[in-house]
Amino acid sequence: MATDTVAPAAQGYVQPEVDVPALTALLDGKYAEVRNLVRSNLAEYASILDDAEQLSTDEFRERVKDVVVEMAATGQTGMGFPQEYGGGGDIGASIAAFETLAYGDLSVLVKVGVQFGLFGGAILQLGTKEHHDAYLADLVTGKLMGCFAMTETGHGSNVQALGTVATYDVAAQEFVITTTTEDARKDYIGNAAKHAQVAAVFAQLEVGGKSEGVHAFVVPIRENGKPCPGVRIEDDGLKMGLNGVDNGRIWFDQVRVPRTALLNRFADVTPAGVYESAIENPNRRFFTMLGTLVQGRVCVGGAGINASKVALAIATKYAVRRRQFEATSDEHEELLLDYGMHQRRLFPLIARTYALHFAQEVVASQLHDVFSGITDDDIARRELESRAAGTKALGTWHATRTIQECREACGGAGYLAVNRFAALKADTDVFTTFEGDNHVLLQLVAKGLLTDYASEFEDMDQLGMVRFVTNLAVETVIEKTSAHKLLERVKDLLPGGDQWDQDAGLLDPDYQLAMLRFREEHMLAGVARRLKRGIDQKMNPGEVFSRVQDHVIGAANAHVERLVLEAFVSKTRSLPAGDQKVALNLLCDLFALSTIEADRAWFMEHGRLTVQRSKAISREIGSLCRKVRPIAVDLVDAWGVPVEMLRSPDLI
Amino acid sequence: MATDTVAPAAQGYVQPEVDVPALTALLDGKYAEVRNLVRSNLAEYASILDDAEQLSTDEFRERVKDVVVEMAATGQTGMGFPQEYGGGGDIGASIAAFETLAYGDLSVLVKVGVQFGLFGGAILQLGTKEHHDAYLADLVTGKLMGCFAMTETGHGSNVQALGTVATYDVAAQEFVITTTTEDARKDYIGNAAKHAQVAAVFAQLEVGGKSEGVHAFVVPIRENGKPCPGVRIEDDGLKMGLNGVDNGRIWFDQVRVPRTALLNRFADVTPAGVYESAIENPNRRFFTMLGTLVQGRVCVGGAGINASKVALAIATKYAVRRRQFEATSDEHEELLLDYGMHQRRLFPLIARTYALHFAQEVVASQLHDVFSGITDDDIARRELESRAAGTKALGTWHATRTIQECREACGGAGYLAVNRFAALKADTDVFTTFEGDNHVLLQLVAKGLLTDYASEFEDMDQLGMVRFVTNLAVETVIEKTSAHKLLERVKDLLPGGDQWDQDAGLLDPDYQLAMLRFREEHMLAGVARRLKRGIDQKMNPGEVFSRVQDHVIGAANAHVERLVLEAFVSKTRSLPAGDQKVALNLLCDLFALSTIEADRAWFMEHGRLTVQRSKAISREIGSLCRKVRPIAVDLVDAWGVPVEMLRSPDLI
Repeated sequence: MATDTVAPAAQGYVQPEVDVPALTALLDGKYAEVRNLVRSNLAEYASILDDAEQLSTDEFRERVKDVVVEMAATGQTGMGFPQEYGGGGDIGASIAAFETLAYGDLSVLVKVGVQFGLFGGAILQLGTKEHHDAYLADLVTGKLMGCFAMTETGHGSNVQALGTVATYDVAAQEFVITTTTEDARKDYIGNAAKHAQVAAVFAQLEVGGKSEGVHAFVVPIRENGKPCPGVRIEDDGLKMGLNGVDNGRIWFDQVRVPRTALLNRFADVTPAGVYESAIENPNRRFFTMLGTLVQGRVCVGGAGINASKVALAIATKYAVRRRQFEATSDEHEELLLDYGMHQRRLFPLIARTYALHFAQEVVASQLHDVFSGITDDDIARRELESRAAGTKALGTWHATRTIQECREACGGAGYLAVNRFAALKADTDVFTTFEGDNHVLLQLVAKGLLTDYASEFEDMDQLGMVRFVTNLAVETVIEKTSAHKLLERVKDLLPGGDQWDQDAGLLDPDYQLAMLRFREEHMLAGVARRLKRGIDQKMNPGEVFSRVQDHVIGAANAHVERLVLEAFVSKTRSLPAGDQKVALNLLCDLFALSTIEADRAWFMEHGRLTVQRSKAISREIGSLCRKVRPIAVDLVDAWGVPVEMLRSPDLI
Repeated sequence: MATDTVAPAAQGYVQPEVDVPALTALLDGKYAEVRNLVRSNLAEYASILDDAEQLSTDEFRERVKDVVVEMAATGQTGMGFPQEYGGGGDIGASIAAFETLAYGDLSVLVKVGVQFGLFGGAILQLGTKEHHDAYLADLVTGKLMGCFAMTETGHGSNVQALGTVATYDVAAQEFVITTTTEDARKDYIGNAAKHAQVAAVFAQLEVGGKSEGVHAFVVPIRENGKPCPGVRIEDDGLKMGLNGVDNGRIWFDQVRVPRTALLNRFADVTPAGVYESAIENPNRRFFTMLGTLVQGRVCVGGAGINASKVALAIATKYAVRRRQFEATSDEHEELLLDYGMHQRRLFPLIARTYALHFAQEVVASQLHDVFSGITDDDIARRELESRAAGTKALGTWHATRTIQECREACGGAGYLAVNRFAALKADTDVFTTFEGDNHVLLQLVAKGLLTDYASEFEDMDQLGMVRFVTNLAVETVIEKTSAHKLLERVKDLLPGGDQWDQDAGLLDPDYQLAMLRFREEHMLAGVARRLKRGIDQKMNPGEVFSRVQDHVIGAANAHVERLVLEAFVSKTRSLPAGDQKVALNLLCDLFALSTIEADRAWFMEHGRLTVQRSKAISREIGSLCRKVRPIAVDLVDAWGVPVEMLRSPDLI
């Protein structure tokens, strides 16, 4: 724990004032207009928050569907589709719209994600013009509702092992879709239980007795509200949250669809039954198809970050209203936010939310560039996929943690459903495991780093990756990774030499970045060495991987945190001198130092942090919290959460 | 991160087999019979888990009430009341019954807690024979339903500042109960919205124009289902969870009750209007009254621990069924529980659950002894209050964290309401802030430590405590605390001298205990010094406290964790040699080392852990996890959660 020797005030530091609208403008960035459209839609449909509590599940599902369709009419949900089909033709705008929608009821958000992101995205990205012409215009308006039937009861993360089969019947020129085992039923499929008329179904394609791997097909599943012949649908029933979304299970019993039902952008089957694809390697083909769906992860990450903003805005405003215990005088009780512990609980979370916001801005912009063809090459795609996976994992874990802390910081009142935390907590809970389980996603990040995004690695499954890495000479692995030449590069990392970091200013962003870079590269090299050593000891590769797994995930986390800090530092550096820059620098320092503090044991273990300096960091965090205190409410106000969405009559 | 050099196997270590029924018997302890009664009641009423999802809120509340009354008829809920009123006359048994009930639906649990623990407890502990005769027999059967009206909208943790007033009208020999401001309405009161006929109301007693502080009164609030004259009741509405409990708000408008409505065990008002109490100091009187209600905290702590067991049992069983990704061979996918990361996520939580179980056994036994008059003196009461507060805080935070981790470890299936996590998560969420907010409770623990439970401190409010501590010479404070003579005592803490801990075996419980003791005493002394230094620098005492607050709470946490480890070590030491002892030693080591690992930065900062040793601890934890793996299912089975309560058709 820190002592209280007060550090001398940074030279020339003047407590900043925050111009809230100007900070909102900075945060909203180039898509301010789109975000404001969504804000006004959220305000207009604010009653949905009451509906979530008051309607029956069936009624609420219908209400959510209606709101989604009505919002679609404002153009808000179709931003990412080509203009010729009624869309906005701007992928970046579609992400901004989706993120902002996360300030509101999250069943609406997820229903939008299913219909326009997953189902619409599959048609757009995996289909060709024929499919676009057939479906896009109607799905953009919500006239045609669809679902995304990938996950099965027995297979979530391991999509390559799906059990559903699509066999080509050359005589009929049709595919026959079949649920082969009970484990192969499609499960947790949003929009399936009630509203979807068609499904994008992922199945093992079999042509002429040969399995060609997982492909997607457009399959009608419901007509006039009834399942189509051969299709059985069951309701997944009540969930922890998101009960405005009708999740369900689907079984296919020899369901026939025409040959053109195959979404054939990356592979096709000729009428005569010849399988054709421009991508020869089946693994590569699979990951290429899957990669086009990266938008969903970018969206969920952004949604988690914005849901955190709602919780922090409520908790911060409550803490400047609620008093508890006489602490500084006998005359009045103390405001919660004047307690050091309360600041320690909330302010690092506010800082991390800002950091993740700017990191999300980077990944959304990369997504836009790749999918708009501005920078679309293999490396850019892989980096995008990795960054999307990492930001999604950190953003959604942050949401779970932040919403929980904020609920506790609001005491018993936070437990009443009227005060939003119940819905926020229950609805966001699944974010950490859907659209990619966070642990699996971080392994994906690590795989990219270990293989430096080399194509032969990217195409490997997990076991293949382990075998490959562990069978190389360790020097080769380390050379291949960004962790190569670790020792030589310490000088680059630490611009003043190996001892520089012992004396650098704690508030110097170069110091903070050097620390996170060192951690990432050291961890990564360590993973490679441990994999190699295990194999040298003749252990089973899977067993080796199992033992190193927490290290693998730690390395990926270190990588993503470094990217997040870089995004924040780069943003603050770009600002002109002034109060806004000072305020954001406070938050950036708080994020950087609390990130180092949380892992200070590692830094000490690896010789990059002395005991004295570690304690100094804890002290500095306390000091930063006290500087943030006067502007805390402005900082949460700047997020521009519509006041109707804060809906906490007992709290603010 | 650890490297993989395998430590030499501990001399003579043989992988144990677990005799599940024998381990259950050990865990159940002397109250096995009571626990089994509750287990069979839970199984009999298992349909309540379905009711929680399928009934309307109104219907579910009635169902929960009925189940509570029917369970009362089995004797299960009245164990703690005197036999002459139909109770079981065994306080320890009542805790055991309540803890076991936490395996089931938690609305039933909380309704039982409100009726028999809080309301019944207030009548029993604060009232005298007249009140016992009037109410106990009927409340034990559930014929008379009551509520515990302490918390107000404006005051939760700070009970001394309640706004409700009870004025003695000497002419009528009645008290007049009044809600003075909107903030003073009673709020979140369980049983208030629908079922309670009477309330134990906490109010500022005014006699002859003088305020005598907070006292409790029995006030009828509802007759024939309608609020009594002058009483207004409002439903708190939907909550995050526990919707089988009817929480509500109560306003009193000049409600008159007879003089005998004062629960007068510790203070009384004569007919003529003279206030009398055997306890002269008003603060002391207040804390004495409050102290009698400590049973609620012991109960909630135990409930949190047992709810964790349900989650861990489900997640562990799922992880030996669910396979994901080919990792060790191409032929089958790997079981989740064979992944190192999965073991790291679940096993330290299993170990901590065992540790908390044995710590809870100690505090429950202390409660029994104090309240049965076996060891009832001031010091024993204060130690009990402190230990109850600490165990409640750690037990309930453990529940929140464990249930979340287990849900994520079960993926999308864990999100479906049918699989229990939804209810477990939503229902337990409030445990961290009700029956005492956890942060406030840990401050209470720290206060006791800093003041060595001296009576003058115990009676102080927070500001008084700060002023007192900070106005003493720091040497005096340190002398008074258990942290005195820190340096001299290092030798006692470290039996082999100051360097001993650098060489001691990591699996030596004396080493593990010495580490946690050192941390506790060092932190505590640090808090005292920082308080003193702040005052010496002429800072406002409240401001000093605010800055030191996270250190205060850290010290309390260190204290409680030390107690928990002591309980676990003491239990394992008491066992005869054999497999059971070996198995529990594995868990005890895993708990101790993962506790040290989580705070290893602190130990390094304070010179008690070298870098090498810190890494060795992480390695040892990995090794312990691999030894726990083969017996993991047995370890969770031994908790004896009725199979009906695991209700997770998609998972196990």
